[in-house]
Amino acid sequence: MNVQAESLKLDKDLAYKLVESLTVEVGPRLAGTEADMRSVVWAERQFQQLGFDKVWREPFDMLYWERGQANLTVAAPFNQSLVVTALGGSVGTPFDGISSQVVMFNTLEELTQASTADVKDRIVFINHALEKDIRGGFYGQVVGGRARGAVEAAKLGAKAIIIRSVGSSNNRFAHTGQMRYEEGVERIPAAAISVPDAQQLSKMLAINPELTLSLQMSNNLPGTVTSHNVIAEITGSKRPDEIVLISAHLDSWDEGTGALDDGAGVGIVMATAALLKQEKPERTIRVVLFGNEEGGLIGARAYAARHHQQLAKHVFASESDFGAGRVWRFDTGMGEQALGFARELQKKLTPLGIAMGPNTASGGPDVSILKAQGVPVASLMQDGTDYFDYHHTPNDTLDKIDPTALKQNLEAWLIMTREIANSQVNLRL
Amino acid sequence: MNVQAESLKLDKDLAYKLVESLTVEVGPRLAGTEADMRSVVWAERQFQQLGFDKVWREPFDMLYWERGQANLTVAAPFNQSLVVTALGGSVGTPFDGISSQVVMFNTLEELTQASTADVKDRIVFINHALEKDIRGGFYGQVVGGRARGAVEAAKLGAKAIIIRSVGSSNNRFAHTGQMRYEEGVERIPAAAISVPDAQQLSKMLAINPELTLSLQMSNNLPGTVTSHNVIAEITGSKRPDEIVLISAHLDSWDEGTGALDDGAGVGIVMATAALLKQEKPERTIRVVLFGNEEGGLIGARAYAARHHQQLAKHVFASESDFGAGRVWRFDTGMGEQALGFARELQKKLTPLGIAMGPNTASGGPDVSILKAQGVPVASLMQDGTDYFDYHHTPNDTLDKIDPTALKQNLEAWLIMTREIANSQVNLRL
Repeated sequence: MNVQAESLKLDKDLAYKLVESLTVEVGPRLAGTEADMRSVVWAERQFQQLGFDKVWREPFDMLYWERGQANLTVAAPFNQSLVVTALGGSVGTPFDGISSQVVMFNTLEELTQASTADVKDRIVFINHALEKDIRGGFYGQVVGGRARGAVEAAKLGAKAIIIRSVGSSNNRFAHTGQMRYEEGVERIPAAAISVPDAQQLSKMLAINPELTLSLQMSNNLPGTVTSHNVIAEITGSKRPDEIVLISAHLDSWDEGTGALDDGAGVGIVMATAALLKQEKPERTIRVVLFGNEEGGLIGARAYAARHHQQLAKHVFASESDFGAGRVWRFDTGMGEQALGFARELQKKLTPLGIAMGPNTASGGPDVSILKAQGVPVASLMQDGTDYFDYHHTPNDTLDKIDPTALKQNLEAWLIMTREIANSQVNLRL
Repeated sequence: MNVQAESLKLDKDLAYKLVESLTVEVGPRLAGTEADMRSVVWAERQFQQLGFDKVWREPFDMLYWERGQANLTVAAPFNQSLVVTALGGSVGTPFDGISSQVVMFNTLEELTQASTADVKDRIVFINHALEKDIRGGFYGQVVGGRARGAVEAAKLGAKAIIIRSVGSSNNRFAHTGQMRYEEGVERIPAAAISVPDAQQLSKMLAINPELTLSLQMSNNLPGTVTSHNVIAEITGSKRPDEIVLISAHLDSWDEGTGALDDGAGVGIVMATAALLKQEKPERTIRVVLFGNEEGGLIGARAYAARHHQQLAKHVFASESDFGAGRVWRFDTGMGEQALGFARELQKKLTPLGIAMGPNTASGGPDVSILKAQGVPVASLMQDGTDYFDYHHTPNDTLDKIDPTALKQNLEAWLIMTREIANSQVNLRL
């Protein structure tokens, strides 16, 4: 199924070579699709060729969402199309689309405070802006409009919702991402328009508040399918039953090739374990490539449920899932008794420009599910200043990865994973 | 038809306000479309509201090209779609598309030196790269692949041609632009893929040189339609029969809103003449907004033909059509006797950071047709370093214009146009 014959070299370019192979040979890999299945086969084959001791897949059920066409046009007198993408999980529109006047809000909060009279039978437009910072910290403030906007708009009788992309670039790409419905609230179509299109639409509304939009989308929810977590281990030389879990997610959104989100993480953690094998680590290093992170941590929940009994033997977990920017801080989520060890570990990271962070790490989106069940975690925090320029857009492609920064990530993961795999310290919360 | 009621203020923000109005209220305006017609009405109305003495339109016939859908997929084992756009003027494919192996060349020259055995029944892929510089000078070296690639490929029996976009950004936008066929050579479909997709495809070909591409496009050439040049004048106070022609083109490609190409130029030259009206210039200032520049200077050729007898009274012509970057040089295309005057004029431009250039200016794409018939020209050379990041892509939108740089353009055009309109010097070649 995959065409690259030779196995990759065990050197510091390995992380880059892996993400290159994944994005070129598999490409976009939306959970539940044929490409998702190809990515599972790709991962198993790479693990085997890299010499892992055990390689297996763990199936889980998921609701499959299928993207269709999406079109959004502004009626006369403007007669223009806007760049639009369906949000993941959104229903489609009737075949002829939904045409209606628009009501604009600057934030989700403004929408929740509006009255039915303002919203009923309209298309809601949330024109929230996303500011940049190294932690991508504003994402959490804005992403609610994407996740919960459809429910809040439907409660007030809206016919559909469009949001300004949760993105920080003025490139004309719409950012997709998962949205949610709520039992008992009408399921209305939800889509995102690019930042320049949101600016364009707000200028049009300033000229003509009565303008009409027409939205057509043909998404489907065909039903339940099987996807997989792919898992591989380097067996520990002294304490093989103690599991050091390092992870990333294998699935991606369908419009880019998932290079930053999360091909980079896949490359980093696969390479980390592969390079540490020759050092015969004392604890077992388990690499988990989670499936369907984008649909709502579906693979991670399945993993936590399946391994519930063994989580006490998971001595540590971490995930790389914030692109390929340089690591700048080492955050922990461990018991107080382990913080001395953590500070010693951070000293080894100092030459890479990595500072000590707080003890409030989530460990990463998928790993946060494990932390909630008591597994100690850490996060090698990446520079995410530009992450939301590309995240969830067609522009998330291999060329956006800086190989030098990716190598620095690999160096940091090697140090963190080595130190934890060879220690006997109890990190538990 | 247009909705903005009030007229724009006669101040230094006028150029920006005009391009904002054009891009928001009209948007993309491919020659021959309904939007092209709306842009003509928009221009006439703006000229009237700005107080021009005469406003009229001049019709011309043109071949109308209609963009359809475009899809390009890589077959198994890669199974991916690439970001593609039809080149302007290209025929479509059969409904089921064209599927074939690929032959890659790095340049048009490599293609022309290939043999029929290498190319026959294949899809040709020209993977030329575009370097950046302030003059956009590499564009001319690479654009031949877009303009003439289909003819050269068809001569060797190719089924279709795709080119790496003639663009300098790694954003995942395909760049459209006009291509040409030749009498007696088969008309094969021609399309462009984005720079990251070209890199992706070349990596795939390195792994599997036998891979198959499938191209589907549904473009049409429905026939001849009418488009227009829109013209307006400030009548000269002393020598009204002497015409100082300043110009831009009103049409745009259909994927962006034509902000840089050439909404900026439209705003600059309309504002220049409107602001000079109060100074009662001695010669007549004629603003020409050419139609269908993108299809091959069609409006400019029509203008030159219609006004052939009066070109001797065109004492000067210039066009703004290179985006909205700061003007950095004043190039001339005048008789030797006028160069002293030109140097005096340039001294007035010095405070704006504008140097004296050579006497080899074309005057701009449309105006080059007039220069060929003896009309003296100049070019206020704009910084085009980033121009080909946006040019001919969906990303050519208002937010890409720096209002401060646009204002510097307006200042430069005011000085140049004022000095020439009030002088008696003979600029003739």
